[in-house]
Amino acid sequence: MARKPSPRKRRTGPRGSVVVIGLGRFGRALALELVDEDTEVLGIDESAEVVQALSGHLTHAVRADSTKEDALRQLGVHEFDRAVVAIGTDLEASILTASLLISFGIENVWAKAISEAHGRILTQLGVHHVVYPEHDMGQRVAHLVRGRMLDYIEFEDDFALVKTTPPADIVGLPLANSAVRTRHGVTVVAVKRPSEGFTYATPETVVEADDTIIVAGRTRAAERFSELQ
Amino acid sequence: MARKPSPRKRRTGPRGSVVVIGLGRFGRALALELVDEDTEVLGIDESAEVVQALSGHLTHAVRADSTKEDALRQLGVHEFDRAVVAIGTDLEASILTASLLISFGIENVWAKAISEAHGRILTQLGVHHVVYPEHDMGQRVAHLVRGRMLDYIEFEDDFALVKTTPPADIVGLPLANSAVRTRHGVTVVAVKRPSEGFTYATPETVVEADDTIIVAGRTRAAERFSELQ
Amino acid sequence: MARKPSPRKRRTGPRGSVVVIGLGRFGRALALELVDEDTEVLGIDESAEVVQALSGHLTHAVRADSTKEDALRQLGVHEFDRAVVAIGTDLEASILTASLLISFGIENVWAKAISEAHGRILTQLGVHHVVYPEHDMGQRVAHLVRGRMLDYIEFEDDFALVKTTPPADIVGLPLANSAVRTRHGVTVVAVKRPSEGFTYATPETVVEADDTIIVAGRTRAAERFSELQ
Amino acid sequence: MARKPSPRKRRTGPRGSVVVIGLGRFGRALALELVDEDTEVLGIDESAEVVQALSGHLTHAVRADSTKEDALRQLGVHEFDRAVVAIGTDLEASILTASLLISFGIENVWAKAISEAHGRILTQLGVHHVVYPEHDMGQRVAHLVRGRMLDYIEFEDDFALVKTTPPADIVGLPLANSAVRTRHGVTVVAVKRPSEGFTYATPETVVEADDTIIVAGRTRAAERFSELQ
Amino acid sequence: MARKPSPRKRRTGPRGSVVVIGLGRFGRALALELVDEDTEVLGIDESAEVVQALSGHLTHAVRADSTKEDALRQLGVHEFDRAVVAIGTDLEASILTASLLISFGIENVWAKAISEAHGRILTQLGVHHVVYPEHDMGQRVAHLVRGRMLDYIEFEDDFALVKTTPPADIVGLPLANSAVRTRHGVTVVAVKRPSEGFTYATPETVVEADDTIIVAGRTRAAERFSELQ
Amino acid sequence: MARKPSPRKRRTGPRGSVVVIGLGRFGRALALELVDEDTEVLGIDESAEVVQALSGHLTHAVRADSTKEDALRQLGVHEFDRAVVAIGTDLEASILTASLLISFGIENVWAKAISEAHGRILTQLGVHHVVYPEHDMGQRVAHLVRGRMLDYIEFEDDFALVKTTPPADIVGLPLANSAVRTRHGVTVVAVKRPSEGFTYATPETVVEADDTIIVAGRTRAAERFSELQ
Amino acid sequence: MARKPSPRKRRTGPRGSVVVIGLGRFGRALALELVDEDTEVLGIDESAEVVQALSGHLTHAVRADSTKEDALRQLGVHEFDRAVVAIGTDLEASILTASLLISFGIENVWAKAISEAHGRILTQLGVHHVVYPEHDMGQRVAHLVRGRMLDYIEFEDDFALVKTTPPADIVGLPLANSAVRTRHGVTVVAVKRPSEGFTYATPETVVEADDTIIVAGRTRAAERFSELQ
Amino acid sequence: MARKPSPRKRRTGPRGSVVVIGLGRFGRALALELVDEDTEVLGIDESAEVVQALSGHLTHAVRADSTKEDALRQLGVHEFDRAVVAIGTDLEASILTASLLISFGIENVWAKAISEAHGRILTQLGVHHVVYPEHDMGQRVAHLVRGRMLDYIEFEDDFALVKTTPPADIVGLPLANSAVRTRHGVTVVAVKRPSEGFTYATPETVVEADDTIIVAGRTRAAERFSELQ
Repeated sequence: MARKPSPRKRRTGPRGSVVVIGLGRFGRALALELVDEDTEVLGIDESAEVVQALSGHLTHAVRADSTKEDALRQLGVHEFDRAVVAIGTDLEASILTASLLISFGIENVWAKAISEAHGRILTQLGVHHVVYPEHDMGQRVAHLVRGRMLDYIEFEDDFALVKTTPPADIVGLPLANSAVRTRHGVTVVAVKRPSEGFTYATPETVVEADDTIIVAGRTRAAERFSELQ
Repeated sequence: MARKPSPRKRRTGPRGSVVVIGLGRFGRALALELVDEDTEVLGIDESAEVVQALSGHLTHAVRADSTKEDALRQLGVHEFDRAVVAIGTDLEASILTASLLISFGIENVWAKAISEAHGRILTQLGVHHVVYPEHDMGQRVAHLVRGRMLDYIEFEDDFALVKTTPPADIVGLPLANSAVRTRHGVTVVAVKRPSEGFTYATPETVVEADDTIIVAGRTRAAERFSELQ
Repeated sequence: MARKPSPRKRRTGPRGSVVVIGLGRFGRALALELVDEDTEVLGIDESAEVVQALSGHLTHAVRADSTKEDALRQLGVHEFDRAVVAIGTDLEASILTASLLISFGIENVWAKAISEAHGRILTQLGVHHVVYPEHDMGQRVAHLVRGRMLDYIEFEDDFALVKTTPPADIVGLPLANSAVRTRHGVTVVAVKRPSEGFTYATPETVVEADDTIIVAGRTRAAERFSELQ
Repeated sequence: MARKPSPRKRRTGPRGSVVVIGLGRFGRALALELVDEDTEVLGIDESAEVVQALSGHLTHAVRADSTKEDALRQLGVHEFDRAVVAIGTDLEASILTASLLISFGIENVWAKAISEAHGRILTQLGVHHVVYPEHDMGQRVAHLVRGRMLDYIEFEDDFALVKTTPPADIVGLPLANSAVRTRHGVTVVAVKRPSEGFTYATPETVVEADDTIIVAGRTRAAERFSELQ
Repeated sequence: MARKPSPRKRRTGPRGSVVVIGLGRFGRALALELVDEDTEVLGIDESAEVVQALSGHLTHAVRADSTKEDALRQLGVHEFDRAVVAIGTDLEASILTASLLISFGIENVWAKAISEAHGRILTQLGVHHVVYPEHDMGQRVAHLVRGRMLDYIEFEDDFALVKTTPPADIVGLPLANSAVRTRHGVTVVAVKRPSEGFTYATPETVVEADDTIIVAGRTRAAERFSELQ
Repeated sequence: MARKPSPRKRRTGPRGSVVVIGLGRFGRALALELVDEDTEVLGIDESAEVVQALSGHLTHAVRADSTKEDALRQLGVHEFDRAVVAIGTDLEASILTASLLISFGIENVWAKAISEAHGRILTQLGVHHVVYPEHDMGQRVAHLVRGRMLDYIEFEDDFALVKTTPPADIVGLPLANSAVRTRHGVTVVAVKRPSEGFTYATPETVVEADDTIIVAGRTRAAERFSELQ
Repeated sequence: MARKPSPRKRRTGPRGSVVVIGLGRFGRALALELVDEDTEVLGIDESAEVVQALSGHLTHAVRADSTKEDALRQLGVHEFDRAVVAIGTDLEASILTASLLISFGIENVWAKAISEAHGRILTQLGVHHVVYPEHDMGQRVAHLVRGRMLDYIEFEDDFALVKTTPPADIVGLPLANSAVRTRHGVTVVAVKRPSEGFTYATPETVVEADDTIIVAGRTRAAERFSELQ
Repeated sequence: MARKPSPRKRRTGPRGSVVVIGLGRFGRALALELVDEDTEVLGIDESAEVVQALSGHLTHAVRADSTKEDALRQLGVHEFDRAVVAIGTDLEASILTASLLISFGIENVWAKAISEAHGRILTQLGVHHVVYPEHDMGQRVAHLVRGRMLDYIEFEDDFALVKTTPPADIVGLPLANSAVRTRHGVTVVAVKRPSEGFTYATPETVVEADDTIIVAGRTRAAERFSELQ
């Protein structure tokens, strides 16, 4: 059951393998998405039931206690250069596991935090990227609950992208003529005809009333634009 | 402690109030983001400790058992037109609460699901929007773990936005001349100079080597672009 | 252990098979009564001990976790047209199971509810018939505790059937002559001689003092009649 | 809080008071039905929450530990002549309570049993009437699941009453002419026009196609009749 | 493992076999004492560990759940005429077991009670002999704690036997001359020389100062006698 | 609540006070028996409910944690010269308490043991008298189960007293003439006429057929005598 | 209850104050020893009982949840320059607390580790001194169990101090003449006459047969010396 | 798995074997240290996992319940002359085990105590050496926390050894000339050059500024000395 991926092979491929520890909702979605994109994944969880359910879907799925150094070394975890600690709610297991990964000298360690204190400890241990799924999704959904947007994402403070329906005053004429930037402070990034996919917008694009559009701009401007009828 | 917001007042404002039930990590972030954007929020949780910690930060924060119809009616929950069931891990409480909100006839009910089965039940009950934070963030982080992107968001199947550093071949000349679309199949949406904010890109924008950029395009094209040096 | 009853076979029989999920006191009595009446029953419970005790008494008795879609499909549950969710006290398991049966499109789903809220959720999910055993039996027994009736059943609001002993004034003469309807507002439906079975009454029937009778009528009239000596 | 109903007063009324111990779903429905019929009820439960919820609905509702002789005597329970042990699932509490009621010499003690063994013990203790709600309702519902009946009740072995829709061959003519008894072996007891109540049937009654009817007869005959179209 | 002792064989022996259910401290001591006296014993306990520890010491020792009728019948318990319910602290198991033994019609059922209420229930079920070890030993030891007696036993109200050392005034002369009965109201039953066994006393017996004696009499008289120096 | 009995007062009384720690079935019976015999008792238990139930029945009843030296000293326990550790099933509390009493130098410490190992530890700690109620009563009851005796007690190895009914051959003549000792190897100690108390037997006593008698003798002889008809 | 020691005052004293978090056996002994040596101690524990027992013995003893930043800041913990995390067995609380102390920038943080993994995490967090009481005492006691030494301490690898009785060949002559160093490879550090304290040895010291001595040297040499008679 | 070390072999070796019961942090460190020093160790623990982890490191490691006499005898524990009860936190198991070892007559029994009461009981049982690791290490670390010492050990009341850096006034000249004893009341026992081991000091030893030294003396004097710069 031990796996020792050859370092050479991983380095020659376009992307390296990833070890994902903890296969709950977050870890599972992450691992499956990686596999979908042709990345090799070693998934580890302490529940045999969880591992069995994912067996066949991940490159490798193994039941192991990730808080034990021996267990991780037998699986070759210390030879990976990318690792994700996706352990759900067990703070202690998350910390013990992250501590081991850091002590192995793995170059890119991601870990999910369930509270500010948890995040601070992970950072003090030396984890490179700390993620807060519940918190971040809460913030994102707040914008959808509040307004009429179809989707919302803030890339950085005060710069958001919003999926919405076009207001009347930009419909039927090329974007170059619609003065979206000057009148609304946003730019139309992409347009989607009903039952087609998105394509990025050009100055010549003509937005129709039943299209869906993505606009970018300062957060407030983007939100205000989505409220227009 | 009962709150009966006047329906008239809520309807005249630019946005209605929102009731958020369950103030764990997801609900708390959501509620605070709404308050930041000047939306009135009634937060409900069954833990007095949680409510006290948020008291003063939300418009109203009340300790109540949201699975009891009487408790919700006394708080006027049946008069809201937007509600979020953000209950953490207690499947039964989530379902009992959502069932009550639907039976009240509230127009927009959002609910967080912790599994596929949970999501299916919420939909069968009549909940309007079901959210899967752990699952969605897992998918999003997968792209960051795999590649060299700084951030990633997929708005719809096969159309993504990516935050990354610019490859050498588009640096130093106006975007109109860089042939980004024809050569890489993506469009540059916004540019960020070091220590400034993002601004949306125009054909005249010249990207510098130490800028951060956001590009849009088909998922694979956007990812491939972010791998360029 | 998987069973896939042929739809054709089930449709040609006088009555279809029934799947009963949850083999506690209610489910067990229900399933055994069905088998007694020559109806095929697939009984499912999560307890191996319970399943073993019923093995040989039901057409099929299987241990399975009815909250898992895979488990139900392997047993062919999605092909039945009659299902009973008789899960005892585990609200969550009852709801998860009922949700799956509805998603299978089963035509007749019965479910036992243990509270009003439970009943409302089952109805919102789409369950066709909701039963409240404890509540209904409580109401029925109330009439026996209060009065001198031997048995009591209310078929609809204000129309009851009562098993009782006959009052003196209807004994010894044909029912046609006893003026039961005009004097007491009830009709005698059936009569039982000591150590015989019930037979339905005709106008010629003569009731004896040691008979047991069933009378029908408005609830109060039937109860008042049973109090007569 | 102690209640000492005067024996004289209780004896002069048309019906005596009843003490109901255990106010779960069965006991609550039973007690409320009694109060609806103007019977005085002393309800006892060990949960303050349960008692408070029923306070105002029962004549008296008291929190007490019914397994303690002192507690029951202080409430005057030993002076009642009708008592119901409706304790839900706690076998030990049910037995301790029933043992005390019998030792008080109460004349009519009813008790709910949750298993055959429980029922045997209650009978050995001297309880006068033992009820099995889950078991009895399971049997009754079995008939509804199996057939096309709207309701079903078996008063004694092999004599049932069934609520159903009338088959074509008895519609439109007086019951006296329809030969129901000779052809189907059942008698029509009552008829219900849409949106009216039930009235008992006479030989002159004409059943219409959209009526609901109650028929009585041997179990198999009644069931077979309900299957006719 | 089932044992079906032939009724004939048991009846021909000087003493019948005994089934002892519950092999805790009380049941074990009882069962071993019976075996020491050449009585056949079938010991039953639900703990495999307990049964194994006694295996070889009892005639038969079997692990079984004595609350299940099937289990007891398979062991032939219904054919014994002497049974002891020595179940330690599990009130429910004690009652369920005793109820079954009574329903079998066993002629002599002994049961250990752990409280007054427990004893009342056992008696109501029909148990023939109820024993209270903790209570009875508490009373007996009280006399030893209080006084200078070496042992004490009360056979009936106000008639006790006491093991003690002889007071000076009865030492050295035949009991017939010591006037023990008239002076102290007790009679000397038995005498024990140092390092010998007890022998019953005769009028000629001479008690020595270092003897141990057993005296009988009214409780107070016996106690007072033991206080004499 | 602290009690500091004056040492002088206790020494002048005919008997000293006793502290009883642990008021379960054994401790309670022991303490009440002492009080009945006019001995002052300080009862200690860690349960407020238990203490309250005994309050008024014991000289002093106090809730305290007997495993804490401070608690015992505040109650003056270190000044008693008789103490009983009657703690039910909590081995650790029994040992901690006994250890403290021994460290106080109390002269007579009794303790109840629930197993051989417990008894050995109590002895090693220095406890003066160790009692095994369950074990001793088990042995005693064994003799009653086996034979036809009404009661049985073994004072020492091979010397027992038995309560029984008289065999035919000693009825109707003075004991002096009945040759009980020579023929049966036992001596009749006491006789009880129906509805009277026991009196000790003299050579002149004539035993009647419906009397109850107590005989003493070697264990086997006493048992064999009780089997005679 | 908040305490804000003036930084100046602490710096002018010969020694600074110390905050000790966790007042179990280790923390309590440590804190009391500090107070004995006139060091001010702020003791913190989450158990009110523990805090009360130490109240009056420490400079300050406060009940608080040390895993909460607010709680620690209110007590002024962030202003100390010496802190000890003596939390017993709760790994998570130990790590959360240590993380906060490090984030405060406290200069000297000591922490007790209960396992190697725990110790590694504490070190990764930035704790300055990690202590393993159980492990270190286990090693020390091993030497006492094995040999005839009275006490043993290893200051560094292969340099130990041992308390023992003197072998015959160094008794009765000045140490300078006893050639202890050359013959045994150890040096006598201190000598203790019976019922006196230790004094350090000089070349003139004459060791007597009933003295106790402390010798220093390489571990094996010191042990071998202690085995001499 | 039973081990019966030959008494002869153990007596002829320079040191006897040791049985260590309880292989937690304390017991494990103790056992491994013994093995390092070539002492045979029989390690016993009730956890199979713990035993397996140490298997191969100890002479013998066996899973057994040390509270059972049979289990210990089968392992030959009663034949050892040195035993350590290193049971972690289970007071009852510690006492039961120690009681058995004492009853075996083992000559040297060591036991770890977790509280004063535990220590008192172990002593009353007859244990020869009682150790308090948490308490003793707490006291020792207190001195390190408080001062500038590198290590500290108190061999007896008021005689300590301290590892520290040398103050300026003893550097650079032979110890004989530095007047350490007269000026500071301590004696320098050993000196350690950077990256060398300790050697004991002689009057000729010259201490350098970057040396580490061990000094002995009265507790206060040794501490004061370590504070010098």
